[in-house]
Amino acid sequence: MRKQKFVSESFVRMTELVLPNDTNTLNNLMGGRMMHLMDVAAAISAQRHSNRIVVTASVDNVSFREGIKLGSVVTLEAKVTRAFSSSMEVHIDVWAEDIPSGTKIKSNEAFFTFVAVDQSGRPIDVPEAVPETHEEISHYDGALRRRQLRLVLAGRLKPQDATELKAMFDLE
Amino acid sequence: MRKQKFVSESFVRMTELVLPNDTNTLNNLMGGRMMHLMDVAAAISAQRHSNRIVVTASVDNVSFREGIKLGSVVTLEAKVTRAFSSSMEVHIDVWAEDIPSGTKIKSNEAFFTFVAVDQSGRPIDVPEAVPETHEEISHYDGALRRRQLRLVLAGRLKPQDATELKAMFDLE
Amino acid sequence: MRKQKFVSESFVRMTELVLPNDTNTLNNLMGGRMMHLMDVAAAISAQRHSNRIVVTASVDNVSFREGIKLGSVVTLEAKVTRAFSSSMEVHIDVWAEDIPSGTKIKSNEAFFTFVAVDQSGRPIDVPEAVPETHEEISHYDGALRRRQLRLVLAGRLKPQDATELKAMFDLE
Amino acid sequence: MRKQKFVSESFVRMTELVLPNDTNTLNNLMGGRMMHLMDVAAAISAQRHSNRIVVTASVDNVSFREGIKLGSVVTLEAKVTRAFSSSMEVHIDVWAEDIPSGTKIKSNEAFFTFVAVDQSGRPIDVPEAVPETHEEISHYDGALRRRQLRLVLAGRLKPQDATELKAMFDLE
Amino acid sequence: MRKQKFVSESFVRMTELVLPNDTNTLNNLMGGRMMHLMDVAAAISAQRHSNRIVVTASVDNVSFREGIKLGSVVTLEAKVTRAFSSSMEVHIDVWAEDIPSGTKIKSNEAFFTFVAVDQSGRPIDVPEAVPETHEEISHYDGALRRRQLRLVLAGRLKPQDATELKAMFDLE
Amino acid sequence: MRKQKFVSESFVRMTELVLPNDTNTLNNLMGGRMMHLMDVAAAISAQRHSNRIVVTASVDNVSFREGIKLGSVVTLEAKVTRAFSSSMEVHIDVWAEDIPSGTKIKSNEAFFTFVAVDQSGRPIDVPEAVPETHEEISHYDGALRRRQLRLVLAGRLKPQDATELKAMFDLE
Repeated sequence: MRKQKFVSESFVRMTELVLPNDTNTLNNLMGGRMMHLMDVAAAISAQRHSNRIVVTASVDNVSFREGIKLGSVVTLEAKVTRAFSSSMEVHIDVWAEDIPSGTKIKSNEAFFTFVAVDQSGRPIDVPEAVPETHEEISHYDGALRRRQLRLVLAGRLKPQDATELKAMFDLE
Repeated sequence: MRKQKFVSESFVRMTELVLPNDTNTLNNLMGGRMMHLMDVAAAISAQRHSNRIVVTASVDNVSFREGIKLGSVVTLEAKVTRAFSSSMEVHIDVWAEDIPSGTKIKSNEAFFTFVAVDQSGRPIDVPEAVPETHEEISHYDGALRRRQLRLVLAGRLKPQDATELKAMFDLE
Repeated sequence: MRKQKFVSESFVRMTELVLPNDTNTLNNLMGGRMMHLMDVAAAISAQRHSNRIVVTASVDNVSFREGIKLGSVVTLEAKVTRAFSSSMEVHIDVWAEDIPSGTKIKSNEAFFTFVAVDQSGRPIDVPEAVPETHEEISHYDGALRRRQLRLVLAGRLKPQDATELKAMFDLE
Repeated sequence: MRKQKFVSESFVRMTELVLPNDTNTLNNLMGGRMMHLMDVAAAISAQRHSNRIVVTASVDNVSFREGIKLGSVVTLEAKVTRAFSSSMEVHIDVWAEDIPSGTKIKSNEAFFTFVAVDQSGRPIDVPEAVPETHEEISHYDGALRRRQLRLVLAGRLKPQDATELKAMFDLE
Repeated sequence: MRKQKFVSESFVRMTELVLPNDTNTLNNLMGGRMMHLMDVAAAISAQRHSNRIVVTASVDNVSFREGIKLGSVVTLEAKVTRAFSSSMEVHIDVWAEDIPSGTKIKSNEAFFTFVAVDQSGRPIDVPEAVPETHEEISHYDGALRRRQLRLVLAGRLKPQDATELKAMFDLE
Repeated sequence: MRKQKFVSESFVRMTELVLPNDTNTLNNLMGGRMMHLMDVAAAISAQRHSNRIVVTASVDNVSFREGIKLGSVVTLEAKVTRAFSSSMEVHIDVWAEDIPSGTKIKSNEAFFTFVAVDQSGRPIDVPEAVPETHEEISHYDGALRRRQLRLVLAGRLKPQDATELKAMFDLE
């Protein structure tokens, strides 16, 4: 039987300071730098779940709200949501904290997918991810729908065959 | 009348060498570093179109195929596809080139969205983007559908109201 | 009366991946890079406590044990131990995690001291730090002794007058 | 017979954004960073021509004109001008683009020379470079004269024996 | 008999410019970056003494005085003070130089300890360090006392047994 | 009368460790990184002479000999050779040191030219540079000839009018 691990075992919290080279000419954190941080936090989470080297397989739609100022503190929290043979979906939450005011706002949220590989780079199976909390179960349940969307967007699944997705459009 | 600029005026080609710090322990380019490069190339394209500072508003689904080795040459080509008042969608194509074999393969493709802002960070209108070639027109036409998908995924549009998207599922 | 904040409110957890440029020719994390990470984690903790810009005032003796390999995950946890008018002592714990084996070992431990400053760089008072747990209280209590040692080592206190320190040598 | 490749096959265009760490205290791009970019662009061009690892052999006189501001876009275009057994001369043009005004000015021009090497670092022959356009032919023709200048400056050719160079001084 | 080298043979002078990414939001050099520079300078000194790869074993108490501004020149001077079988203590002096005023002030001073290792990371003996000048001899003599302090602070020596240290407190 | 400073007052020694990100796929220091280091060392020297912000005006021909391995120590020594109203020529010597063998070889030599500027970026006069040693005098004397070569190569002086240069070709 396939090995099982709790989703909570893959939890990663990463805290970063926004430095000058991370910012644009408005002194705000650049989107590309943010995605770089998200990828590192999510990769560490997938590595903790699989005890393997992992490679980024896909990044789901990410939207950016307010600018994050130079000198702010960025906190990223990542957790595997669900594992499929050799791939793992990881959820990432990002907060931006303004030091003088002490305010902390939710900045972004994203789903990244990783594949575990062996030393020669071939995909290798990973343990099942077992959700426990209400939020973990909700992310676990939505993983199939997001996976279909990825396949449709990558042209590897016909929209008509994406049954989970169609349900989302209330069409069946 | 709103100013117009050709899509081709926003074309950017960026060429990068994969260096040690860009790679994981398999000596392959990390996904986060790739997204950072995409964001810079796309931002320059949006800046050329708008002659403004731009901030990343969203990144559409990106999928990663084969690993790109240390020492490879990565070429990114970015072009604005369509402009909506203060926002611009940018298409990015990425190729990976292996020097010893001289082979060059398509590695990724993505759509990023940027908002043009003034010096105090407030959104400001940009010129219309006028497509000319067959591919530019096709990207221009698809922009509405991708925009609806972004709104649905961000929870700001109900799936039932996303008429362009529903058409994609052959449901109307 | 001086404002009070719980020690636990300043807690910071930072997680980092050891990348090629962080390593020496044995592929181990360099000591200087580790201290850089410790300083950033501890500074964020002191900023959370004080809601101010902080500057590093001193670093206590740090010892390094086993090498940390390229590709390992480094976790730093920082917490203010005690505040003295404008200065704060911060305790940092560092763990190194080897992904293939899943083992996580305590790597380092250190005390850094920061001073809170205003926009022109002048020291400014910070809230008192209130310890709650057994470990927090023990760190709080030891802070005076470590402070005397710093003053003695900086030549600003005569060893004979360092009453807390002398007690440590069982001499009174 | 020695393999031939068109000069145009080695063309590289690199686009970069001037970031804070690239600048001096006047917020202008530093000369050393510019030369670093030139070297990378030119090396990629020489690698495309030779399908080999290349090492920098020499940099000809480079002069810098106006400062390039933080936030500007720098475009570098590189092309092999001529190949000599294992070495290749590469021409690089640099433009600086100011985003708000949309102006783009020629900033620098330089010639770098690279040697193609095998996996153990030994020089190895490269294809001939065949010029086609008027400018390519002019760069091809000037390559001998620049090569003599390099040899004279490196003390490996007596000025009196530099026949191509002397012609430049209208002395024969 | 064990090989001997003069302390002066390990002398290293390193000069660095304070760049934007090295600074905090007050535009001052960050403490962690300074310690990174100290570690590199000291490691080069220990490598010159031992002709071996070295790893950082410990950092003694470092205190920071005035802030060092963006654009300043930082000069570090490092020299081995004493060698013990496979370990070497290194002394580092740091100066900060303000270019417009031409003033140069002593900024920091520290002792780092390194262990020389072979290719598999095992400790290996190093030559004796022979002091010549008055200052070198004074650093050599104090090395035992600092070593005891490190052992006490690391919990590997009882304070009561630290005879050299106790002398410092005028207690015997 | 114009202020005078000794050439020796502008002396800078910079020591650097070759790190992974500085190297190409043969694990040798990249030429562009070397030029970056040369520019920083030379700029600090020109700043010490002028007590001003300086900008790179030109780089003379640089040739690269043997590769410098990852983990090597690079030492750069820079000194102003001569000052002309607002510009200064700086000579840079570079050595590469292999730690295991303890060998140190001369790697490169170059002349960079800088212009001193005020806070708004306008050229401003600098002190005269007074040479003392035999080598300093020889560099001082050659400065006019190198300056003519720069002007000829930049197309700002006709070769026929470069009297100092013609002398070099033994033609007058």
